[in-house]
Amino acid sequence: MAPIVLLTDFGLDDTYVGVMKGVISGIAPNAPVIDLTHGVPQGEIRQAAFKLWQAVNYFPNGTVFVVVVDPGVGTARKPVAVQWRSVMVVAPDNGVLTYLSTLEPISAGAILENNEYRLGEVSTTFHGRDVFAPAGAHLWNGVRLDQLGPAFEDPLIFPLPTLVAQESSLTGEILHADRFGNLITSIGRLQISQSQVQFAPWFSEAGGRLYPASRANVHLPDDRQLPLLSTFGDVPAGDPVAYIGSEGLVEIAINGGRARQALGYGDGDRLELHFEEGHG
Amino acid sequence: MAPIVLLTDFGLDDTYVGVMKGVISGIAPNAPVIDLTHGVPQGEIRQAAFKLWQAVNYFPNGTVFVVVVDPGVGTARKPVAVQWRSVMVVAPDNGVLTYLSTLEPISAGAILENNEYRLGEVSTTFHGRDVFAPAGAHLWNGVRLDQLGPAFEDPLIFPLPTLVAQESSLTGEILHADRFGNLITSIGRLQISQSQVQFAPWFSEAGGRLYPASRANVHLPDDRQLPLLSTFGDVPAGDPVAYIGSEGLVEIAINGGRARQALGYGDGDRLELHFEEGHG
Amino acid sequence: MAPIVLLTDFGLDDTYVGVMKGVISGIAPNAPVIDLTHGVPQGEIRQAAFKLWQAVNYFPNGTVFVVVVDPGVGTARKPVAVQWRSVMVVAPDNGVLTYLSTLEPISAGAILENNEYRLGEVSTTFHGRDVFAPAGAHLWNGVRLDQLGPAFEDPLIFPLPTLVAQESSLTGEILHADRFGNLITSIGRLQISQSQVQFAPWFSEAGGRLYPASRANVHLPDDRQLPLLSTFGDVPAGDPVAYIGSEGLVEIAINGGRARQALGYGDGDRLELHFEEGHG
Repeated sequence: MAPIVLLTDFGLDDTYVGVMKGVISGIAPNAPVIDLTHGVPQGEIRQAAFKLWQAVNYFPNGTVFVVVVDPGVGTARKPVAVQWRSVMVVAPDNGVLTYLSTLEPISAGAILENNEYRLGEVSTTFHGRDVFAPAGAHLWNGVRLDQLGPAFEDPLIFPLPTLVAQESSLTGEILHADRFGNLITSIGRLQISQSQVQFAPWFSEAGGRLYPASRANVHLPDDRQLPLLSTFGDVPAGDPVAYIGSEGLVEIAINGGRARQALGYGDGDRLELHFEEGHG
Repeated sequence: MAPIVLLTDFGLDDTYVGVMKGVISGIAPNAPVIDLTHGVPQGEIRQAAFKLWQAVNYFPNGTVFVVVVDPGVGTARKPVAVQWRSVMVVAPDNGVLTYLSTLEPISAGAILENNEYRLGEVSTTFHGRDVFAPAGAHLWNGVRLDQLGPAFEDPLIFPLPTLVAQESSLTGEILHADRFGNLITSIGRLQISQSQVQFAPWFSEAGGRLYPASRANVHLPDDRQLPLLSTFGDVPAGDPVAYIGSEGLVEIAINGGRARQALGYGDGDRLELHFEEGHG
Repeated sequence: MAPIVLLTDFGLDDTYVGVMKGVISGIAPNAPVIDLTHGVPQGEIRQAAFKLWQAVNYFPNGTVFVVVVDPGVGTARKPVAVQWRSVMVVAPDNGVLTYLSTLEPISAGAILENNEYRLGEVSTTFHGRDVFAPAGAHLWNGVRLDQLGPAFEDPLIFPLPTLVAQESSLTGEILHADRFGNLITSIGRLQISQSQVQFAPWFSEAGGRLYPASRANVHLPDDRQLPLLSTFGDVPAGDPVAYIGSEGLVEIAINGGRARQALGYGDGDRLELHFEEGHG
């Protein structure tokens, strides 16, 4: 009994998420429903794409993700559902599938045009309720992709974040901060599939996870440097620290503090990882 | 298997909601529990009534709503349960049933006095845990309203928000803003049942939903004017826009922005919808 | 069908909680999962311990609590699972079991060392996903504590909050504020097991709950005084009030307001409860 998983920018203070669950409970009353998060910043398609990528491997086969970060609701962007590996994703085709489909192409898709699998009336502003939640619930019930509408093939892809390999260093960027103020960067597993050869000297992979194979230093946006360690507890409370986070990406944190606020770096700021060869 | 649906002002940072779910899981372990929202502003009975109205049609027959926005807990206000159409609502009788019972009277009700269906000890400050959650769980289990206590008939009703029909315009008010800063107004489906005749020339209804049947302009509280369009994507990013929102009510938004903050209007501020007849 | 109950400081804006639920749904797909709260302030072990104590009696036998407030993740602190009365708790051994195990010792425990019951790869920063969620799900499935790892006996205990009994008064402290700004204090049921004799003249207990048996006054940190009443509705809106809260502890509130902000007291500030003997 795989779940339906919701990922939106609706927050939890309005009834939008609750109403989507009401619609699901009317169509697929036995489906377990899990909130991945509803805290994506308003309209931030890149963060939604990242969070979907971050989570997808931790859910069982057959999971149906319903992603509603949809600043273009009611305009021409296509509402779609896709099969990707062993899961399905229902979403607006606005870039939220970028990381998944860069990692591996979708194996099938449909444009959600069949009125049978939408609510009777479709509003112009709340397709989460009227289009996406019903599609997810019907897919969970066993409705096939080709029943939902015409075939869909090429998800919209936004430009990937910076990750450039030099001779003995990698240049990446800060993607965003989490609730603890930890800064998550583009350096690591995220784009390994595209630059596997270059990474090989410095990273080794085990169980789908990256590890630095030699000593490394992070050069921060203001040229401060931090050695790459294992976890925030490796430095005294209040000190900054760099480590490979739980998604296999380099993160910058303050042990017991908030790096975002304390260090003042912003999303998109560049940083470099320098390796000292021969010390692996 | 219809759900039990929780609507409170408890927020999610304390354990109040989790403890209510613990109580429910002890009484009705197989009941699916859905959070409508716990983000009603503290003690805001009107918003709770609105959110219940907003959601009720999207849940299946047999749903049990448990509403705990209860600033008078421990005082004389009555804890009640009512049947309304095909759902049940458990709540303090403080006005939260206003919109539902204005739309259509409750068909039955009970005052929650029977100690068999409360927790052993009832606190003076947390009836959500001690009275309302147990009542909801017992109702879900099939306990009848008349077993919960003496009959209850007339829910307390607060004064409805402004909605006045003139010859070719409607005067309404701003009810509140949602998480996106979109301003939701009283103009639309909310009070259609009370003034259906006057509305007929300007609105048509399909599938329980209202649509403007002619061109219309919204006169904002500061006399700015906006044409009534279809969705926020109909204007350039950063521009204000008026449209009929997903509940059938006129909303004011900024495409990609926050109307509440940008426009500075407050709850209760008046606005008017002017129709241009003959352009329908 | 008892639930798995999650208590963390992860908040809901990231995917940490959602990913833990994904892991659980892969191992124990039929387990109902309840969020106790994810709003524990970052790394606040004392508040996590309090919230666990606050909630534990309201969940059915067989409930599995998974507590992840874990500032020392990746360092030497032990990940453990314990049996306590009729429930199980999975947590880092960092003090979060303090109130439970002070009330009554754990009856069995294990250190979570068996790799069979962890994810294949264990990160250094997210044991909620890699260690605690899997352990909770396996326990729910019927795996025994002794299968999870070597026996664990003595949970780490932090110093209990101030509660001193004088001849006709009690000195306690402010523990923290809830979402309503209500100040929760250490005076009451929390430590009754340790000082039952002294309390007897002033408190009576029924159904596990404490009641003041005589008139009492609370002396606030700035020497203001408030009589101990029943509920916040006992004073006019805007007035401060002291009462025994829903956990059996003395609380300070402002009726319809926020005591934390209005009164300015901080966590750890001392206050006294003075009894007037003979007026019971």
